[in-house]
Amino acid sequence: MGQNHKIDLNSDVGESFGAYKIGLDEEVIPLISSANIACGFHAGDPTVMRHTIALAKEHGVAPGAHPGFPDLLGFGRRNMDVTPEEIRDYATYQIGALQAFSASQGMKLQHVKAHGALYNMAFQDIRIWEAIAEVISKLDKELILVAIAGPKGDKLKEIGRQYGIRIAFEFFADRAYNSDGSLVSRREPGAIIEDHEQAADRVLKMVIERKISAVDGTEIDVIADTICVHGDNPAAVRLAKQIRETLLASGVEIAPIGKFL
Amino acid sequence: MGQNHKIDLNSDVGESFGAYKIGLDEEVIPLISSANIACGFHAGDPTVMRHTIALAKEHGVAPGAHPGFPDLLGFGRRNMDVTPEEIRDYATYQIGALQAFSASQGMKLQHVKAHGALYNMAFQDIRIWEAIAEVISKLDKELILVAIAGPKGDKLKEIGRQYGIRIAFEFFADRAYNSDGSLVSRREPGAIIEDHEQAADRVLKMVIERKISAVDGTEIDVIADTICVHGDNPAAVRLAKQIRETLLASGVEIAPIGKFL
Amino acid sequence: MGQNHKIDLNSDVGESFGAYKIGLDEEVIPLISSANIACGFHAGDPTVMRHTIALAKEHGVAPGAHPGFPDLLGFGRRNMDVTPEEIRDYATYQIGALQAFSASQGMKLQHVKAHGALYNMAFQDIRIWEAIAEVISKLDKELILVAIAGPKGDKLKEIGRQYGIRIAFEFFADRAYNSDGSLVSRREPGAIIEDHEQAADRVLKMVIERKISAVDGTEIDVIADTICVHGDNPAAVRLAKQIRETLLASGVEIAPIGKFL
Amino acid sequence: MGQNHKIDLNSDVGESFGAYKIGLDEEVIPLISSANIACGFHAGDPTVMRHTIALAKEHGVAPGAHPGFPDLLGFGRRNMDVTPEEIRDYATYQIGALQAFSASQGMKLQHVKAHGALYNMAFQDIRIWEAIAEVISKLDKELILVAIAGPKGDKLKEIGRQYGIRIAFEFFADRAYNSDGSLVSRREPGAIIEDHEQAADRVLKMVIERKISAVDGTEIDVIADTICVHGDNPAAVRLAKQIRETLLASGVEIAPIGKFL
Repeated sequence: MGQNHKIDLNSDVGESFGAYKIGLDEEVIPLISSANIACGFHAGDPTVMRHTIALAKEHGVAPGAHPGFPDLLGFGRRNMDVTPEEIRDYATYQIGALQAFSASQGMKLQHVKAHGALYNMAFQDIRIWEAIAEVISKLDKELILVAIAGPKGDKLKEIGRQYGIRIAFEFFADRAYNSDGSLVSRREPGAIIEDHEQAADRVLKMVIERKISAVDGTEIDVIADTICVHGDNPAAVRLAKQIRETLLASGVEIAPIGKFL
Repeated sequence: MGQNHKIDLNSDVGESFGAYKIGLDEEVIPLISSANIACGFHAGDPTVMRHTIALAKEHGVAPGAHPGFPDLLGFGRRNMDVTPEEIRDYATYQIGALQAFSASQGMKLQHVKAHGALYNMAFQDIRIWEAIAEVISKLDKELILVAIAGPKGDKLKEIGRQYGIRIAFEFFADRAYNSDGSLVSRREPGAIIEDHEQAADRVLKMVIERKISAVDGTEIDVIADTICVHGDNPAAVRLAKQIRETLLASGVEIAPIGKFL
Repeated sequence: MGQNHKIDLNSDVGESFGAYKIGLDEEVIPLISSANIACGFHAGDPTVMRHTIALAKEHGVAPGAHPGFPDLLGFGRRNMDVTPEEIRDYATYQIGALQAFSASQGMKLQHVKAHGALYNMAFQDIRIWEAIAEVISKLDKELILVAIAGPKGDKLKEIGRQYGIRIAFEFFADRAYNSDGSLVSRREPGAIIEDHEQAADRVLKMVIERKISAVDGTEIDVIADTICVHGDNPAAVRLAKQIRETLLASGVEIAPIGKFL
Repeated sequence: MGQNHKIDLNSDVGESFGAYKIGLDEEVIPLISSANIACGFHAGDPTVMRHTIALAKEHGVAPGAHPGFPDLLGFGRRNMDVTPEEIRDYATYQIGALQAFSASQGMKLQHVKAHGALYNMAFQDIRIWEAIAEVISKLDKELILVAIAGPKGDKLKEIGRQYGIRIAFEFFADRAYNSDGSLVSRREPGAIIEDHEQAADRVLKMVIERKISAVDGTEIDVIADTICVHGDNPAAVRLAKQIRETLLASGVEIAPIGKFL
């Protein structure tokens, strides 16, 4: 049964900055297997990065870079009209900075996942995926690029092949999906799945059967390697815990993507 | 004669930021053998860092990190009351970011030289040297730490031994020295050597005889591995050129410190 | 003849930042009558703002605020997906800061002109003009809002009436215009008028006859209150000088918009 | 008895930044009479400033500027080696920006209180007080400069007279004082008064009798116009509430300093 199934749980962490604290990192990191660590552009700072790598190490969690736009004021959530070349430079800078904190503690980065507006813009403009893939191919071909599972999966795999890197697909535990595999917009009713049990069961089904129910009731195929959970508030942490427990109880192994991809 | 003598020429470069340009990098980089590249805190930005690594590569110049305080407004020249731990974090971040640009272009960083107020404060507070040395020892023991030649040389060598890294000493071509080997303060008359020929001859003497005339006329010993020249204005570039030509004409070999230290 | 004609010359100034210098402010400010002063978001800093106000005062030039996006790295030239509310807040902040430097020196701001991407985005999204007009109406109804002369002039005048503020229209001395009064895109050939004499004559004709030749050869009406000139390089300053001299030689009075609008 | 006594309660507020939240402003503002609002350098941003002015207005609290060093990463708590001229420029900029948000909502700033390291450095270097006093004298002579009550009070009053501005002295409700009227260093045991009742009684005594017990048991005179309370955590808010209630129960009137100084 589930004993052959492996899945990764990832979360955005290391988003505090100076005296400012965001996220219950101490609580969510023990629950996940891969940590997307902010790199100082949209969130995070050098001290926070060091702490977060240490926390990941302590809990056997694989660290990854979570680069974003240089927009601390907007938390990297605002689209910016930057060129692919600028994106390459920003990604190189941020990944490099986190690699250093990782190396200093005897760790190696596992993956890269773009943050916020950069992540969203990448789905509109394939050149952004290419830019990040190119950066990874030059820095460390072992780094896995995390992208959203969905309609553009094939195109993303092609980019992965082109640059000689692995692509991992992520699934959002608390988001509804359209029948084409895309996310239901947050502006639509029902975009967020509020019920924790329902969300956990849905994740389990996705892991075991590789299927979920879309918002229109149809069953659709979803092939994902990692589940995105959140740690910004106590309820999010509780959901992460429930998902973890539901998976473990069903014999699913939770492991960093780098271990099985 | 001079044919056995080797010396490095270093300069602070990559200090432009966005639309803002500082430094005649295209002119000074071909004249030097080691480039101290700003890393985005006091100066420099990701795009400038990439360009500067490319320029160094093109001219066979060894790249190094030039980390500074997070004070773009003050160009890293203002003392900030940061802790040794913060310095470690800031240095790790900046060196890591530059390592990535270097790695992306198939290069390896050769050295680290602190910038401005961070460099100056290190001479007042040995814990800052220790902090940077510790960072280097964790990131890459091959990285050479550049410090000023002078009275504290022995203490610095000890720090180098303690952390298992090499220390290179630098000499300022255009600065007068006190008889104890320290720099004459810029507030004193005669602190800057204006005459280019005199400055070049003085460098040559330092390289060949390991001696210079201090401001009070006494001859003092100076053991330096690298000469700091500047590229912020046309006169500085001319001085760099004159020093280079004077050295070459006397059979001194100009090479990156990593090649002979 | 021309003796009844009045026109303003404006230029973007105060764009230096810390150790970074942009613009030949000392040269261009004596040639203009209104100064658009950067306010520290996309360019400028507190010390530069004080200096620039002093320079404007010394030369009898009317100071104005030149607010932009919080994007020093991109010099405010990159579109950012900010809300009208954020624009109001950013404009209030920047105008207020400059008002303080102005008040400290016994001056009063004359106008507000948005910078770069904020200016360009305003022509796509009327809500941005409304946002800035609203800010002005709350801070100081005497402040003039500067906008580009062209097809949307009527809509802009309406916004001015709605918020009880004056709108001034600007003409670009060195740019070609389409027959509908819009600027020829910089991507098209002939977008920039390189010949200084031609540019100056064209400005003179616009001032005296309120007409210019569009890029397709047709004569179009242009009603502008202020001419935008540049000071970022010696050629731009020469063009500004030529325009000034051509206008003065023809009896046109050059005066701050606030004096005649 | 106490019915003739008036005192102000002030607190540092508006310290959130973008997605980052610091301080229970909604809870503490209703308890105080003067609000020290961060201005975007060490904390705060344009949107937060607007919100905080609105909150102050809603609760009849007098707004004041709380300028700090340009060090968001260090929350303005780290000494920076800036010149008096830079401090003037930074203060002018920040006060001006907040004046604009105040003016936009039909309010007028009441006071200026320096933040963190800037405040602390001012007690070591009188030129900093002079710099801020000079800024105030040029911007708005009605603005009150808030300084710590203690040994340097006479010198501060002299600066106030020199620049034609009012100085208000503040007392720290939760801090122990030395017998010379200076604060007990936080590094010493007993520097912080943990007991809320004791702190409130001590404030009451200071207000009514103008005396407190110093850390060595001696009674010392303290003449203060405003009590500094905090809102960064629930316990601090509870202390503020207890102080407020103790004062009101004894017939002390709590009012903005501008109303009675």
